Amino acid sequence: MHTYQPPVKDFMFILYDLFQINEKHSDIFADYSKDMVEPILIEAGRLASEVILPTNKAGDIEGCTLESGKVKTPNSFKEAFNKIASGEWPSLNCDPEFGGQGIPLTIATAVGEFFGSANVALYIYHVLSHGVYSTIKAHGTSKQKSTFLPNLVKSKWTGTMNLTEPQCGTDLAMIKTRAVPSINDSYKISGQKIYISAGDHDLAENIIHLVLAKIPGSPDGVKGISLFIVPKFIVSPNGEILNPNNVSVGKVERKMGIHGNATCVMNYDEATGYLLGLENKGLSCMFTMMNEARHAVGMQGLSQAEIAYQYANQHAKDRVQGKPIVLTDRDTKRNNDTQTSDTIICHPDIRRMLLEQKSFIEGARAFAIWSSLLIDKGNYSNDEDAKGLVSLLIPIFKAFLSDKGFESTVIAQQVLGGQGYVEDSEMSQFVRDARIAMIYEGTNGIQAIDLIGRKLTASGGKYVVNFIREVKSFINNSSNDEIFKTDFVTPLNSALDDLEKSLDYLSKYGLADPNNALSGASDFLHLFGHVILGYLWSQIGKKSLTRINENRDVDFYQAKFETGKFYMKRSLPETKLRLARVLSGKDSVMNINQDRF
Amino acid sequence: MHTYQPPVKDFMFILYDLFQINEKHSDIFADYSKDMVEPILIEAGRLASEVILPTNKAGDIEGCTLESGKVKTPNSFKEAFNKIASGEWPSLNCDPEFGGQGIPLTIATAVGEFFGSANVALYIYHVLSHGVYSTIKAHGTSKQKSTFLPNLVKSKWTGTMNLTEPQCGTDLAMIKTRAVPSINDSYKISGQKIYISAGDHDLAENIIHLVLAKIPGSPDGVKGISLFIVPKFIVSPNGEILNPNNVSVGKVERKMGIHGNATCVMNYDEATGYLLGLENKGLSCMFTMMNEARHAVGMQGLSQAEIAYQYANQHAKDRVQGKPIVLTDRDTKRNNDTQTSDTIICHPDIRRMLLEQKSFIEGARAFAIWSSLLIDKGNYSNDEDAKGLVSLLIPIFKAFLSDKGFESTVIAQQVLGGQGYVEDSEMSQFVRDARIAMIYEGTNGIQAIDLIGRKLTASGGKYVVNFIREVKSFINNSSNDEIFKTDFVTPLNSALDDLEKSLDYLSKYGLADPNNALSGASDFLHLFGHVILGYLWSQIGKKSLTRINENRDVDFYQAKFETGKFYMKRSLPETKLRLARVLSGKDSVMNINQDRF
Repeated sequence: MHTYQPPVKDFMFILYDLFQINEKHSDIFADYSKDMVEPILIEAGRLASEVILPTNKAGDIEGCTLESGKVKTPNSFKEAFNKIASGEWPSLNCDPEFGGQGIPLTIATAVGEFFGSANVALYIYHVLSHGVYSTIKAHGTSKQKSTFLPNLVKSKWTGTMNLTEPQCGTDLAMIKTRAVPSINDSYKISGQKIYISAGDHDLAENIIHLVLAKIPGSPDGVKGISLFIVPKFIVSPNGEILNPNNVSVGKVERKMGIHGNATCVMNYDEATGYLLGLENKGLSCMFTMMNEARHAVGMQGLSQAEIAYQYANQHAKDRVQGKPIVLTDRDTKRNNDTQTSDTIICHPDIRRMLLEQKSFIEGARAFAIWSSLLIDKGNYSNDEDAKGLVSLLIPIFKAFLSDKGFESTVIAQQVLGGQGYVEDSEMSQFVRDARIAMIYEGTNGIQAIDLIGRKLTASGGKYVVNFIREVKSFINNSSNDEIFKTDFVTPLNSALDDLEKSLDYLSKYGLADPNNALSGASDFLHLFGHVILGYLWSQIGKKSLTRINENRDVDFYQAKFETGKFYMKRSLPETKLRLARVLSGKDSVMNINQDRF
Repeated sequence: MHTYQPPVKDFMFILYDLFQINEKHSDIFADYSKDMVEPILIEAGRLASEVILPTNKAGDIEGCTLESGKVKTPNSFKEAFNKIASGEWPSLNCDPEFGGQGIPLTIATAVGEFFGSANVALYIYHVLSHGVYSTIKAHGTSKQKSTFLPNLVKSKWTGTMNLTEPQCGTDLAMIKTRAVPSINDSYKISGQKIYISAGDHDLAENIIHLVLAKIPGSPDGVKGISLFIVPKFIVSPNGEILNPNNVSVGKVERKMGIHGNATCVMNYDEATGYLLGLENKGLSCMFTMMNEARHAVGMQGLSQAEIAYQYANQHAKDRVQGKPIVLTDRDTKRNNDTQTSDTIICHPDIRRMLLEQKSFIEGARAFAIWSSLLIDKGNYSNDEDAKGLVSLLIPIFKAFLSDKGFESTVIAQQVLGGQGYVEDSEMSQFVRDARIAMIYEGTNGIQAIDLIGRKLTASGGKYVVNFIREVKSFINNSSNDEIFKTDFVTPLNSALDDLEKSLDYLSKYGLADPNNALSGASDFLHLFGHVILGYLWSQIGKKSLTRINENRDVDFYQAKFETGKFYMKRSLPETKLRLARVLSGKDSVMNINQDRF
């Protein structure tokens, strides 16, 4: 009944028409022509819709169970996991030296959206493995790389990130897990880690845990944390499984969503571990790949929004209910027996809901590609400006896309009315699965604090100044078309002005008293997020106008233009509300005595 | 671990200090002194926290099952249900003629919030029964009343509302269920009803279904719908159970939340039914009690927000994590071993989240009492202005409180970080349970359409004009206190201005093309909702200032004043965003061809 149409066309538009990756970034994408990339996306989309999606609902119902100390994943997962692996999809942007395909992240991002839409709980096993791959690749010795990377790339093994303990999540200074030096440069790791995604399962031969722990005698706080490789099974240097390590699963959490992904309490009881990177530099090793990891979580928000939108859209075109007062679609058919009612997509409030989703999703997708492109430019070309800008953008990408992605699934659910509340429709699952992205990989509150506390001020504020200059230059060079000016340039200019005002406030009052800045941190992040989407929609609008004038694929570009207009008119003005909040400072937030909460 | 503190003090403040029900509405509340009402609220609160709340989580986990055609509710429900019944709580505002206690809705509203917070899935059985009681009381023959009401009042029987069918929810013109005249003024009812809350269960002896159906030969559409009483068991005139009726349960739905309330597919197979009210007047009979029913659903949003807030607040005061840059609370204690970290309530972004919840909840609670008061004035004193005003307010109350109530639970969940996503913390349940209130009893989109399509224009727009006049008069008579003016009067005035501008737009462009109004209906409703809460917060602020000056309970009133300030500064400016959307009209919503969604 439900189908998923991978948004291949939209990605191709963004990659090759909007960002013109072949022409403008030929140093990276010279080998990635449209003709080469489109079949990859089509094939990934086919796998997502035909193989992965059918496992999604069953995975939610079945969930993961702990049986005799071992985690059992949903029955359907094994086959889909293996098909993803045998298609070498997880290794798309891994280094060929270790068996990967060396394709830029920008292309892999599209594939990630498809797989995340189809079954995010399953896809997370691969996302985490990729994080472990990247961290070992960045910090491992050559022996560690040759031992662990090939099987991670092949998805023969998966990986996990172990940071959180019962007494500490955000505040890693309080970590209690111990790593005591042992024979042959190994360590004995002891402690409990909680909320470990993909902590145990039956999908792969081995699991490579990356574990933060303290070596006795190391400095207090975050400066005394080291990172360790702790495999579920000890392996030989060439990757053969030897004996089980002292790692056990204490519990599988019962969660709101992503039921198919096992979130575990992990107990390390003198487990054998190997130092990754330098002693006491564990945090910076763990967070080397932070941009990629947070990007992947933002993508989860987008991917859930997309699948939920597709189901809502389908429903709105199928469900006959109520007679609109005014019919504006010429193609509307009165399609029930008695001709008294119409499909609900004819109703303005249903369209309003669909457009809130659609205009967010398509704008966010452009943001996804833009930020991936910057990451690639940083990695391939060592472009410092790209690195700096993407570091600024990443907390926004993670938090804005997960917040709005969740909201978007809630709106999609609303389109279905009562059916949306019933699990059979799967809308509840999209809402429940989307919710986690606002929490893990640093809560969205932490992203906001990172944005105003670190990213804005990095390199003397250079990157936010660069961003503003870029948008102003776009505005100044924008078309003279009056419609475009009214519909895009004017609102963009106004939103940018709000961003500048909020920055003025932060530098004037936030430095004097950080609580003035922190009280509005989340609002500032959302303000910035809207400016980014407004800027991207304006670029899309301009491009669309050009293509319409060239009489190319007019229907497609006309829809883009109208969807962008909706965003500029109805979503972007939120910057004013966010600005008002930022400007209200600390008083109304900090004045109440905590006993009066 | 988790405790629930019934907000008795806040209700007492709203009833006796803010609205002064004894003095200002003595015709209704002369007998309801503070000394009489407070013990009622305390006792209801005790029942909620000690008896009802402990059943909530187990009810969510266990859910309802269909076994051999009968619905089994969660094990713990029976005892709590019986204690609520034996305390005569559901009959609080029922007519003494049928065994009720005749207490005004305004008082019962407080009790409803407590029970809803403690276990909304359980409480809904009572809410629905009350709806059936009210409908039979309003439209039943004296024989119907004496047969059905006493046992409904006693909660010996419960009731259900049967409107939706697979092909129709909002659009009841498409109802297919048939009612064929039979012997002794009875009818044979045949058809299928879906999404019937409390459709079957094992908590009471009998279930009285109110069923919308068409009598053969009746007019097409909504003018041919009649309402029938269809008991699960046929009863004698004095209420003795005789034989089973031809009513069966086809399915119990698997839902996102309210698992303890059985949502059923009900099959009527020549079931015996009795016409309630006049033939073909079924819809107006069913909707007589619409204000009360929609009020009850708005209360669900508030009640879930309150319990979620309490859990989040508790967590924020317990959880030690991170060191705030600036400590503004003089009473903050450095309370972990190493003195490096503090409770998270010291962090501005956590406070921001708590205050978003708190300022919504306390404002909404004042709205709950204000609207109940208007319903009581309509019922007791036949006050036409009160009736008109509350009809205008009810769609806003239902939709605004359920939308914001849901949002508030999501924010509460965020305060807990990873713990919030794990079902053990119960935060997921509050989110999932709150979600339904946005959908049933008319989706929030339908509320918005009702508001702009019917309520605004009723009696020539008299009631919205009255409302605006009332707020203006408050503004003009407000205190000369400069702080109060800056913090409350100025933002209220500005929000009221936004309301007037949106009304101007609706009357100018909405009448010419209804799609201009309908495209902004939901935004208009939210704009109006904020103005109402802003108005109520201003009244609370003014009262608080008076009490502070009188040196009475200064801590309490100071917190009220500060919480109100937060609302006025940070939530109320949303009216500007909503206005921008209303003013954007139909173009960006209706222009895209439906094939391009």
